[in-house]
Amino acid sequence: MSRAVVLLSGGLDSATAAAWAQAAGFEVAALSVDYGQRQACELEAARRVAAHLGLGEHRLVSVDLRAIGGSALTADLDVPKDRPEIGGDVPVTYVPARNTVFLALLTGFAEVLGACDLVIGVNAQDYSGYPDCRPEFLRAFEEVARLGTRAGAEGTRFAIHAPLLHLSKAGIIRLGASLGVDHALTLSCYDPPAPFVHCGHCDACRLRRAGFAEAGLPDPSAYAPVAG
Amino acid sequence: MSRAVVLLSGGLDSATAAAWAQAAGFEVAALSVDYGQRQACELEAARRVAAHLGLGEHRLVSVDLRAIGGSALTADLDVPKDRPEIGGDVPVTYVPARNTVFLALLTGFAEVLGACDLVIGVNAQDYSGYPDCRPEFLRAFEEVARLGTRAGAEGTRFAIHAPLLHLSKAGIIRLGASLGVDHALTLSCYDPPAPFVHCGHCDACRLRRAGFAEAGLPDPSAYAPVAG
Repeated sequence: MSRAVVLLSGGLDSATAAAWAQAAGFEVAALSVDYGQRQACELEAARRVAAHLGLGEHRLVSVDLRAIGGSALTADLDVPKDRPEIGGDVPVTYVPARNTVFLALLTGFAEVLGACDLVIGVNAQDYSGYPDCRPEFLRAFEEVARLGTRAGAEGTRFAIHAPLLHLSKAGIIRLGASLGVDHALTLSCYDPPAPFVHCGHCDACRLRRAGFAEAGLPDPSAYAPVAG
Repeated sequence: MSRAVVLLSGGLDSATAAAWAQAAGFEVAALSVDYGQRQACELEAARRVAAHLGLGEHRLVSVDLRAIGGSALTADLDVPKDRPEIGGDVPVTYVPARNTVFLALLTGFAEVLGACDLVIGVNAQDYSGYPDCRPEFLRAFEEVARLGTRAGAEGTRFAIHAPLLHLSKAGIIRLGASLGVDHALTLSCYDPPAPFVHCGHCDACRLRRAGFAEAGLPDPSAYAPVAG
């Protein structure tokens, strides 16, 4: 059974990507990153998801991206709520070079485990706004992983799997349900008002809510009560 | 005056690379990485070098690569001493995907500062043993930086400068001396027996010593006394 390494954020996309990798026959080792994110409770969600899926290994790496800043998720900037339009421009929740940092860490993790399959739950909805979710970025990173590692120098070709790349949020939710993902364990919110409570108004919450509605599946998330 | 960001480890290569960038007319901002390295006192060397060069900005980012391990610098493995031959194979001091992680962080730092010039002190002696110091790796990373950032999506072309790439250690030492680098502030050792003391026997110490000898310049480093 060959091993794959998966970035596990605690959100529903990465949980589905991990379940996909298991279903495809990989022995899955997950990596979560504590990067100083505002929504740090997603790391507890990642632990719950890893336990629920029965992953053999779940590693946590810390990198203090607050020292670099430049994002509403890592600096003292407001997370936008109820934006009229999601997608198109790069939102203030973009974290400079975040997926480049994450994939670099995942590459190191893969190399230590002797894995050459990297899995990331990015998707079309993401890459409309976040440059580091685009397919051409992922292809370029495969080349960096090959050239920048001992394993690559010895002949390993790293593959970055993005099994959700062309799915809508509703499609991801349906796929996750088919694969047995317990969506209640996942957390999408950028700005949770309390642990495991979704604010309901940031881009991530709105995409999540709309996704469940479109998929015709019940949304098991706890949402903050409407103020006033 | 345009800005460049430089990886500053505290060693003589990165100090020389920073001085090169200043001499080339860049306003230099430095990034040092606390990655859980055995030789953590090199970060104090980096601070001294940054102050000595009068850099306007020196940022420290922490990433715990011990959580990934796989290297004599980040795990409980011995640093080889007095190896019969340096170069050729990838040494146990190779840290999985280290320069990929470092360049990812440097890219994020550049993006936040609005810089597109990245400077790294890798050189021929390094890339004989470390895959992530090879010129083709650096070229591939430029593409990742372009594709994986907001700045890149908006048209920025990132350039990775490796001004020492084809220099020997002696050449780097001579260049540093010409540019006013105070070599006494730098630390090369992988396994310092005391803060700011070089062991004299790891690959890094031996290359440093031989470099000063070949350059015909006095070696200002403190070396541990010979045991016995």
